[in-house]
Amino acid sequence: MTPSTLYVCTTCRSSADAAPSADRPRAGERLLMAARERATVDADPETRIVGVECLSNCSRGCTVAVAAPGKWTYVIGNLDGEQHAGDILAFARQHSAHETGVTVWRERPEHIRKNTIARVPPMNFQESS
Amino acid sequence: MTPSTLYVCTTCRSSADAAPSADRPRAGERLLMAARERATVDADPETRIVGVECLSNCSRGCTVAVAAPGKWTYVIGNLDGEQHAGDILAFARQHSAHETGVTVWRERPEHIRKNTIARVPPMNFQESS
Repeated sequence: MTPSTLYVCTTCRSSADAAPSADRPRAGERLLMAARERATVDADPETRIVGVECLSNCSRGCTVAVAAPGKWTYVIGNLDGEQHAGDILAFARQHSAHETGVTVWRERPEHIRKNTIARVPPMNFQESS
Repeated sequence: MTPSTLYVCTTCRSSADAAPSADRPRAGERLLMAARERATVDADPETRIVGVECLSNCSRGCTVAVAAPGKWTYVIGNLDGEQHAGDILAFARQHSAHETGVTVWRERPEHIRKNTIARVPPMNFQESS
């Protein structure tokens, strides 16, 4: 099964942040770095982690999306630049392991359950009549 | 170029709605019907219009998503069951005609510009370094 891709918005600011600086990158960039570090710690070489400039969820950042060919895509928001790398990687692994990407709701990390911004069906989705 | 697909959430309620009834379907179902009627009026046989049970944007419905293979996906919210069929079809046609799906911002219908919930890159997206 194709490992899922974790897109991390690098444009997102945290409400706690002052203006970004060379010393203090944006919260989205910090989340991207934290996710890559956590993937190393978790010995998770499969999840593809990709930085993206703006996922258009600016008022509820930080933001990630989890996607894979032929599966539902999830957008998750209100993420903290430091705290949520483990949650988003855990969800990405659940998504990778699930046939349709619609993982078991109660098994998702709590922050994911409570901060799902949107989901979108795969291109091969057929309407039930 | 592959015509874009317009996914319409049929679960969305309108804040103005009372409980749904046989006489008064949910706002999302009304938006789906209005989009299909408008596609006929506009002589737009290309846009694929698909009803979906829940796009997980419940607090800011009605909701649609516009997607096509190899393009960015857009999620649009705060749609009215009766008023916005023309806007979402116009945006779907712009998306169909655009190579990456990232249509010219100022050419999008105003409601689309102001109520984009999220966007997600295509699976072939490469991070710029």
